[in-house]
Amino acid sequence: MKITIIGVGLIGGSMALKLKSAGLVSYVFGVDQNENHLTEAKNLGIIDEISSLENAVSQSELVIIAIPVDAARKILPSVLDLINDNQTVMDVGSTKHGIVETVRNHPMRKRFVAFHPMWGTENSGPKSAISASFSGKAAVICNREESDEDALKIVEKITKNLDMHLIYMNAEDHDIHTAYISHISHITSYALANTVLEKEREEETIFQLASTGFSSTVRLAKSHPEMWVPIFKQNKENVLDVLNEHISQLRKFKSALEKENYDLLEDLIRNANKIRGILDK
Amino acid sequence: MKITIIGVGLIGGSMALKLKSAGLVSYVFGVDQNENHLTEAKNLGIIDEISSLENAVSQSELVIIAIPVDAARKILPSVLDLINDNQTVMDVGSTKHGIVETVRNHPMRKRFVAFHPMWGTENSGPKSAISASFSGKAAVICNREESDEDALKIVEKITKNLDMHLIYMNAEDHDIHTAYISHISHITSYALANTVLEKEREEETIFQLASTGFSSTVRLAKSHPEMWVPIFKQNKENVLDVLNEHISQLRKFKSALEKENYDLLEDLIRNANKIRGILDK
Repeated sequence: MKITIIGVGLIGGSMALKLKSAGLVSYVFGVDQNENHLTEAKNLGIIDEISSLENAVSQSELVIIAIPVDAARKILPSVLDLINDNQTVMDVGSTKHGIVETVRNHPMRKRFVAFHPMWGTENSGPKSAISASFSGKAAVICNREESDEDALKIVEKITKNLDMHLIYMNAEDHDIHTAYISHISHITSYALANTVLEKEREEETIFQLASTGFSSTVRLAKSHPEMWVPIFKQNKENVLDVLNEHISQLRKFKSALEKENYDLLEDLIRNANKIRGILDK
Repeated sequence: MKITIIGVGLIGGSMALKLKSAGLVSYVFGVDQNENHLTEAKNLGIIDEISSLENAVSQSELVIIAIPVDAARKILPSVLDLINDNQTVMDVGSTKHGIVETVRNHPMRKRFVAFHPMWGTENSGPKSAISASFSGKAAVICNREESDEDALKIVEKITKNLDMHLIYMNAEDHDIHTAYISHISHITSYALANTVLEKEREEETIFQLASTGFSSTVRLAKSHPEMWVPIFKQNKENVLDVLNEHISQLRKFKSALEKENYDLLEDLIRNANKIRGILDK
């Protein structure tokens, strides 16, 4: 299968590497605004050819849009304008309601599959791409009834070759769940980094003392605003809802400490411990 | 060297394994209130002998106290009562001001070294002990001037054999830094787990969708209250100080989203990104 990757960064690059090594994809056209990324991706064997959008799409069975969610919403209609009924387009964005709304009335809507692989790291760019990355993780297809059966089949095959398990969901539910499971983690991590940077002026001490616990909690704070501002923007209502709940949960810890109510503190911690039973299933 | 480990859990057990494999320690007496832990530790080769406190201490050059910080404060004076000038006692607790105050006027104070290895996981018990755990991490000795030179030498040798690098600090500074670097991470992680458990009633969805980002941010929420309530209690003022700052940082994200001020949101994220430069030094 010949494919086009629009956006040869962490996600697009990792998908290309994995799908090539799995033998499903024989040739990858790379399209990106960032010429350095294109050259890097070519040198790393992620893509086979640097191409214009029109040329790439015209020769591809499948087009994967792997750019920030605001840019993906902008480019998707133009990509659908370029394809025929034998071609399929998928995205990989972390918000889904906005993008399915954008093309709801597009004549080629049925050739688009709204997709979200639940994997990422705090890094970006083709150099961060890892072939084994998606293995064992979940991937979501949203609003499957709005896509053609054969387009869904292709994306299901892609999922299988990424070694991911597939979940079907409507776009609104997806965006609520990702606010809980992914987006809020980034905000707490950013806020934690800003807290430490604000309070702890001795950078050398942070570096020396930073324990494994701190590093893992604050890891996501390294994630770039180019990717995350558009996600928060598109999922604003859900993210605010969860953020308000999170602040109110933190206030319970604050109140337990202020009132020296250590039984309440223990109850709060025991409740949080339940996450072990859920995550370690 | 023959040593006693009081508390054969994650930290005590990991230290015993590492120090034995490094060849520094030849024999380990295990003391613990939890008889199952003692049996497990014996079966796992972490300790050589299950013993009473008195018997163990009488035959040990070094006593390592590796129990929750409130229990450590209680037991330390009795251990110092049992030793002579050729024996050394160290703790491994995550708060240091309380414990050094407890023994400030003890006649054997100089045989005690206040120690904190900056490593841990969300797990507990001897089964979680890992020999390689401490490698490359920082360890802190507090108030070195209150300990005898030869007692310090022994703990420095222990640190070297754990493959850790040593930092000296006074106990008050240590407790301020650990509030920033370790204790607040646990509170945010607990609060995040409680947020998700409160908002996301569909446990199956959490399990299926939980991405690597979520798992790493919420990992610390699995940590037990038996260890953490005493830490928050002993470091209450510093933890509250950092927690207030953290809530105010989260409010900035909330405000930026509510006002749709995406330039501010980007600034907040760019500032948080600076943690990369510090952590990846």
